[in-house]
Amino acid sequence: MAAIKPSVPKGTRDFSPAEMAKRNFIFDTIKGVFRKYGYQQIETPSMENSQTLMGKYGDEGDKLIFKILNSGDYLSSIATLKQLFAIEGDYLQSKNREAEERSDYAEGIVDVVAERKSEFESLALQLVDELADLNKITPKISEKALRYDLTVPFARYVVMHQNDITFPFKRFQVQPVWRADRPQKGRYREFFQCDADVVGSKSLLNEAEFVLIYDEALSKLGLKDFSIKINNRKILSGIAEVVNKADQIIDMTVAIDKLDKIGLDGVTKELLERGFTEENIEQIKPIILLEGTTEEKLTSLRSVLATSEIGLKGCEELETVFNYLKSFTMQNGKVELDITLARGLNYYTGAIYEVKTNEVQMGSIGGGGRYDDLTGMFGLKDLTGVGISFGADRIYDVLEELNLFPAATDESTQVLICPFDGDGEAYALPMLQQLRNKGVNTELYPAGAKIKKQLDYANGKNIPYAVMVGSDEMATGLLTVKNMQSGTQEKLTVAQIVERLG
Amino acid sequence: MAAIKPSVPKGTRDFSPAEMAKRNFIFDTIKGVFRKYGYQQIETPSMENSQTLMGKYGDEGDKLIFKILNSGDYLSSIATLKQLFAIEGDYLQSKNREAEERSDYAEGIVDVVAERKSEFESLALQLVDELADLNKITPKISEKALRYDLTVPFARYVVMHQNDITFPFKRFQVQPVWRADRPQKGRYREFFQCDADVVGSKSLLNEAEFVLIYDEALSKLGLKDFSIKINNRKILSGIAEVVNKADQIIDMTVAIDKLDKIGLDGVTKELLERGFTEENIEQIKPIILLEGTTEEKLTSLRSVLATSEIGLKGCEELETVFNYLKSFTMQNGKVELDITLARGLNYYTGAIYEVKTNEVQMGSIGGGGRYDDLTGMFGLKDLTGVGISFGADRIYDVLEELNLFPAATDESTQVLICPFDGDGEAYALPMLQQLRNKGVNTELYPAGAKIKKQLDYANGKNIPYAVMVGSDEMATGLLTVKNMQSGTQEKLTVAQIVERLG
Repeated sequence: MAAIKPSVPKGTRDFSPAEMAKRNFIFDTIKGVFRKYGYQQIETPSMENSQTLMGKYGDEGDKLIFKILNSGDYLSSIATLKQLFAIEGDYLQSKNREAEERSDYAEGIVDVVAERKSEFESLALQLVDELADLNKITPKISEKALRYDLTVPFARYVVMHQNDITFPFKRFQVQPVWRADRPQKGRYREFFQCDADVVGSKSLLNEAEFVLIYDEALSKLGLKDFSIKINNRKILSGIAEVVNKADQIIDMTVAIDKLDKIGLDGVTKELLERGFTEENIEQIKPIILLEGTTEEKLTSLRSVLATSEIGLKGCEELETVFNYLKSFTMQNGKVELDITLARGLNYYTGAIYEVKTNEVQMGSIGGGGRYDDLTGMFGLKDLTGVGISFGADRIYDVLEELNLFPAATDESTQVLICPFDGDGEAYALPMLQQLRNKGVNTELYPAGAKIKKQLDYANGKNIPYAVMVGSDEMATGLLTVKNMQSGTQEKLTVAQIVERLG
Repeated sequence: MAAIKPSVPKGTRDFSPAEMAKRNFIFDTIKGVFRKYGYQQIETPSMENSQTLMGKYGDEGDKLIFKILNSGDYLSSIATLKQLFAIEGDYLQSKNREAEERSDYAEGIVDVVAERKSEFESLALQLVDELADLNKITPKISEKALRYDLTVPFARYVVMHQNDITFPFKRFQVQPVWRADRPQKGRYREFFQCDADVVGSKSLLNEAEFVLIYDEALSKLGLKDFSIKINNRKILSGIAEVVNKADQIIDMTVAIDKLDKIGLDGVTKELLERGFTEENIEQIKPIILLEGTTEEKLTSLRSVLATSEIGLKGCEELETVFNYLKSFTMQNGKVELDITLARGLNYYTGAIYEVKTNEVQMGSIGGGGRYDDLTGMFGLKDLTGVGISFGADRIYDVLEELNLFPAATDESTQVLICPFDGDGEAYALPMLQQLRNKGVNTELYPAGAKIKKQLDYANGKNIPYAVMVGSDEMATGLLTVKNMQSGTQEKLTVAQIVERLG
């Protein structure tokens, strides 16, 4: 067999042992916090029926879904085309025979052939068109697709298993998703999502607890300064309502969302371009420039939104969340009311979250919100939910940049036993088991390699201790223990080693 | 949007929180043991380039690989076909015009048209054939496929990253694989494999350590009686050699492998059918019926295989492995020399493993072996490897049948706080945080639900303790703690509860 130059598909990645240890540190930390708050893990299949996924992510999203080829019977259109050719071949042959036999009728036959040809062509072209139309051909050759996110499969799960679920259902899910996006820095075609959602509970305590979950998980990961921004869709609706632009809420929020980047003048310009009046902008301005404590912000909002029922409802909800949070001590996170926050506006109906680190330059490392009708698309109406997501790849980059990954994890080998020869190997086998019985991750380098090579191996795997077993060591019963970081060596008995390192 | 009746693709599964807790128990246990023996985790992408996978699993395997549809430009053949129709249409139209104008030449034109038609037809049919040929069309519409096992992607990984790897490379991998097999009981289209392999070390200590890994992991999972069967491909080669049937080693081992099921008479009959002579069978019989201790078995084998160099080499290797094992204390597993063991004979070159539980009726729950040229297919020659695999789905079924899953895991919520109303909720919030700070998985059921519903929720999630917070409780400071298993209740202060359950 010819050797194939090995590669992975673009936008996908291998994870080395060192990378896996870091990824596991992130995922295990977040999972532990999810569990502490009563969230339980589920997993759904990597592939879903296409009809479960298609139409849920907009036209752009649909195009980015990876479709899986049916095995076998997807060529029926091509078979039809082939049949058509065969029938036509027979017909033309018979006409040709006729023409040869009755040359006086040739002209008429030319017409018949031409007419028949044109009929045939239009049929075949129609079939070719059908084959060429991606939307028509795809269902014939593909009925399954790879998960695009964790939310739609979760909605499908809830509806499918609704009779077995105890509501409110608090679930988390950490699994890969696939998107046929153009790969670029930080954007992959396969990446893990890390979501927690609760469905079937309207209580705003859930909203407050998600703030605590972000705070606890990110603090545990070692972040010292990060903002958990919170907003409420109802406040955005209220603002649009008081300026009589309820139908232009998206235009408005898209503009306001850019305040950080383009400043007040930029936002004003954009609002004018999008059909807002100077008067509208005067009304909105105090909201955009909202400052002070959360209480002060809410007071200002209440006065601006005084005429909007939905706006006031949004203020009340946010106040309840902030009141809940007063009963808890936060760790390193700062919770912050940010009415310019508008992510996921198409589906969020209440709280909206976004999390950013203030230690390095990086997009949001988390986000989420409340949606009032998650499962409606699968026929289960009026089930409210609220959920958050951690951006694991970005968190990885942040921890890397801040050098926050623990140097050694319990995933690493702690001790490498290095025998000088077969005798040393035999001598060391019982110690190997004793250390493992004590729970120490231990390896013995198989006899036959030079000590230099064995120590290189220890360095390559970041193993902190090497125990050398040569003839001197066996004669005296004192083995050489080398600290691979400091380079210092000690002579210890097997019992002392097991005691010390175990 | 019309509601879709939700379902998952056949052969795939959702995993509920209860199932996930059990699966995590299995995977975490095995991963912990892998790490203790110095194996490090890697992950590879779910999708590989088709050329990485195709041709590695035989024709049958190739058919079972799930292929992923390219997004976009896969319809070039169909476009060509369409173009062909257009050109042909123009040509025929012009000939038709000629025919009309010069009716005296009609006959000749009929011939031209017919000839041209036949040329066109043969071209178009060729194209249709190409489209219809799965092997030819697939590369045009699909260039990626889902991982079929963990071994080939691992080989690809080793070759691709050979300059970054410290050899011997001890890696484990726990990831799903996909096969378009017909689903049936215990066979899924998506399932997890759980593999550990070491490449770049010829030492037979690795073989012995895999026996210990099986023993420790399965004992930790609670199995009391299981057999780790071991054989060596070289012994099977030796047997085939001494009866002068080296080229029929597969026929021979397939027959011998059935001893358990069809008995000695059955095996004899099958060997005769497959062209072995009565004399061959007399020679093989003592080997098939091999009994006694491992030492006795090896002595018998050595005498039968006296004339076969490779056979004696196999005996020597097995003896070395058994000698290594003498230095270790096994837990609940029994290691057993079984020369009828012939799994994976196509690629294994040395040790062959198979693990079976003796407590319930079940196929093998693990297997593996040594292969001398794992990475040759990707151009890296002579890298030897040995590896094992755990059958997670079967182990799940065994533990379920033997009732060996731990009742509560650290994944479960330990305490549910049940407030009678909003006041109770506010009163309980600080206790909620205190318990969580102590590492106790705790939930507070949001105010507004009847206590009955809250206790049903605790039962539904198997939460062992419920803490009731009503007006009496708040007045006296003594909260009611209910043990949900026994039904007993106690009155305790918040401090006592935190102390007791924390």
